[in-house]
Amino acid sequence: MSEQLPDADDLLEHRDAVALGAAIEELNSGDVSRALSELSRSERLTVVGRLSPEDAAHLLERLPEPQVTELVMDLAPAQLAAVVHELPSDQQADLLHELTPERGDAVLAELAQVDPEEAEEVRFLSAYDDHVAGGLMATEVLTFPTEWTVAQVIEDMRQNAEVYADYEVQYAYAVRDEVLQGVLRLRDLLLAPSKTLVRALMIADPVSVRDDAPLEELEEVFRSNRFLGVPVLDAEGKVLGVLRRASLEEAAGARADRDYLSAQGIVGGEELRSMPLLLRSRRRLSWLSLNVILNVAAASVIAFYQDTLTQVIALAVFLPIISDMSGCSGSQAVGVSVRELALGTVRPHELWRVLKKEAGVGLINGLLLGALLALVAWLWKGNVWLGAVVGVALCVNTLVSVLIGGSVPLVLKRLGRDPALASGPVLTTVTDMCGFLLVLGLATLALPQLLA
Amino acid sequence: MSEQLPDADDLLEHRDAVALGAAIEELNSGDVSRALSELSRSERLTVVGRLSPEDAAHLLERLPEPQVTELVMDLAPAQLAAVVHELPSDQQADLLHELTPERGDAVLAELAQVDPEEAEEVRFLSAYDDHVAGGLMATEVLTFPTEWTVAQVIEDMRQNAEVYADYEVQYAYAVRDEVLQGVLRLRDLLLAPSKTLVRALMIADPVSVRDDAPLEELEEVFRSNRFLGVPVLDAEGKVLGVLRRASLEEAAGARADRDYLSAQGIVGGEELRSMPLLLRSRRRLSWLSLNVILNVAAASVIAFYQDTLTQVIALAVFLPIISDMSGCSGSQAVGVSVRELALGTVRPHELWRVLKKEAGVGLINGLLLGALLALVAWLWKGNVWLGAVVGVALCVNTLVSVLIGGSVPLVLKRLGRDPALASGPVLTTVTDMCGFLLVLGLATLALPQLLA
Repeated sequence: MSEQLPDADDLLEHRDAVALGAAIEELNSGDVSRALSELSRSERLTVVGRLSPEDAAHLLERLPEPQVTELVMDLAPAQLAAVVHELPSDQQADLLHELTPERGDAVLAELAQVDPEEAEEVRFLSAYDDHVAGGLMATEVLTFPTEWTVAQVIEDMRQNAEVYADYEVQYAYAVRDEVLQGVLRLRDLLLAPSKTLVRALMIADPVSVRDDAPLEELEEVFRSNRFLGVPVLDAEGKVLGVLRRASLEEAAGARADRDYLSAQGIVGGEELRSMPLLLRSRRRLSWLSLNVILNVAAASVIAFYQDTLTQVIALAVFLPIISDMSGCSGSQAVGVSVRELALGTVRPHELWRVLKKEAGVGLINGLLLGALLALVAWLWKGNVWLGAVVGVALCVNTLVSVLIGGSVPLVLKRLGRDPALASGPVLTTVTDMCGFLLVLGLATLALPQLLA
Repeated sequence: MSEQLPDADDLLEHRDAVALGAAIEELNSGDVSRALSELSRSERLTVVGRLSPEDAAHLLERLPEPQVTELVMDLAPAQLAAVVHELPSDQQADLLHELTPERGDAVLAELAQVDPEEAEEVRFLSAYDDHVAGGLMATEVLTFPTEWTVAQVIEDMRQNAEVYADYEVQYAYAVRDEVLQGVLRLRDLLLAPSKTLVRALMIADPVSVRDDAPLEELEEVFRSNRFLGVPVLDAEGKVLGVLRRASLEEAAGARADRDYLSAQGIVGGEELRSMPLLLRSRRRLSWLSLNVILNVAAASVIAFYQDTLTQVIALAVFLPIISDMSGCSGSQAVGVSVRELALGTVRPHELWRVLKKEAGVGLINGLLLGALLALVAWLWKGNVWLGAVVGVALCVNTLVSVLIGGSVPLVLKRLGRDPALASGPVLTTVTDMCGFLLVLGLATLALPQLLA
């Protein structure tokens, strides 16, 4: 093979699963993603179909989510079942969530033929939401009865060494009738005399989380403790799995990525430039077309004041400024609320506190920005009334924008929606309308002075 | 104590370090953060000063970053040194980065009096940037010579059990002259005969990273492997520490949080509503005042075409629409580029590829949105030329916006700047100006038809 890294055509040429797997392994994730995206849909399917289930599973772990979604749409249920079988438990359910319920059932049926127990477990896990402990935990967990001795534990580990090799074990859990009693550290096992009972060696009353605990609560647990993993229990206290710090950080990072994309107007799911042109265009349009309609609605306020505008054409210069500035102030307030909700420093019911806090910032910034714009208008046209109109309008509208921007995320959160959606077109429309009304309404009132 | 959770005044009342520590422990992180923020600066210092260094360190680990920054500004170097001493190694340097160089040196000098070796290590670590392996790694790492036996390893662990208790150990590393030779899994130690040599038990040729490897490269390593930790080496291959998956995910999440905030216009560092009013106001203003100036600049284009506008006042309705819509299209393109750069599916030099990809989406969306707006204008005023002017302007400006929005993040990345800054006021100003020029320029050309 030349020094060049394998490209799309090279991947297509490899008919041998091992060579193909090795070629893909040579590339980093971004390059694999790109090479696959350069293939047609059926070529891509051919390449992935040729891989061993293990290599295919590894490939799916490396690809960005939108590309995984696309791929799993096309693979046959039997292929998918083989891939699921190779994935770690915390990713099996994630893959199932990408499928329609019917295809999910088909995959589970296929998996049940290979490993009925695993199929049952995956079905159980996929019932959990992505954002609760049950949906984030790994079920590869070591549990030992409290009455066992260290020798028994070590003997068990020796016998199951091959199974446990897939486990990322830092802790084992001591249980009585499957109910959590304590935590065993592997290094303590290493150092303890072989007749010691698990009960004597374990750390009792360990921190644990319920399977239905939401992301915010889990973040708080890991913020307050240094553990790398926490046991996940069902309602009866039985150990279901372990939630690793890394999985939690990953979920929190994914939420921040989503927030970022939705702040940028990418809302129909993440976009990669390797996706089909029409899909990308359609997704972006879903957001833009809502925007254009709401924009037209907001601008209709201007049409209503056409007479005033004709007489004081200078106002037309300030309308886009007021609209843009209010949007900026509002989105700052949204950003702070979304972050504070995630950090837990503000609670969804504290609307009053947020309004008070935003009112202060809104007043100061509104006064300063309003004064600045008033000065610009006054200097430009030499009419102090024009300055007053645009200055007061910007000042009031800044206040309105931060009050709305700061509070809407809390309301959305209370309604069980994503607070980051607050920075959407509806907020801008309201602040735009209000801004246009203020400028043009005030100008109409002050028309004699403006024309003086 | 009543059933009520302790509040700010309760914290201030506790004069006893243990009781105070327990009271703080009772609260979740958000509540602690809030309670502290309700105290005056000197009261806060009193409370934190009363805590044991261990409790103070734990408190700092739980507080959001802006509040930590505020607190460490006020604590005495000796207090800070005691706190640093209690922090895990990967957070010691983080705390030092919050200080001015002079205060950092003072803290290290204090620390050197307690533990000169640790002070040296913290100084060494704090030289690393936050976003490279050296700045993210923990130095609590177990290394054993390849020629040792399992019995020797276990004996060493037994003797140093207390020291190692602070280590989050999943792997130990096998070294020769400090240079990495292989990885030892603890469970293998558990199962191996005691005369086995480390050399025979270790997994050779382990994956490792250089201390100066940047975040993107580290993400790639963890994407391609399932490890929970990777050894960090210096230029000679000596083991410096271990980078845990959780630390990496945390750093990636922090980057996404920063991206989100900067997309929302919070750029001078994160804001909490518990911060002083004037600080919050000033930080937001730094962004807003730049915006207002650039907005005035963009709007001056409108002033230039005042004559056209006076004659076709309907155009004033469409100016804010074109400005807002172009901003939306541009920020979508910025969002996709920022995400693709983070995922590695686009490289900073691939400007041409991005421009081609964006041109497709920009054309389709521009044509559709332009047609929609043209229709609105035509129906409203019954003048097809008005429709043509605003439609063509929106179409062309959508294309311009996505081309600029898609490419600027790549350029910023090549310049070593944060790509997320692309969604700033400069982009909006350029697309605004261009949009105003298009609408009013075209209208001036078509003036006779518009007035017909």
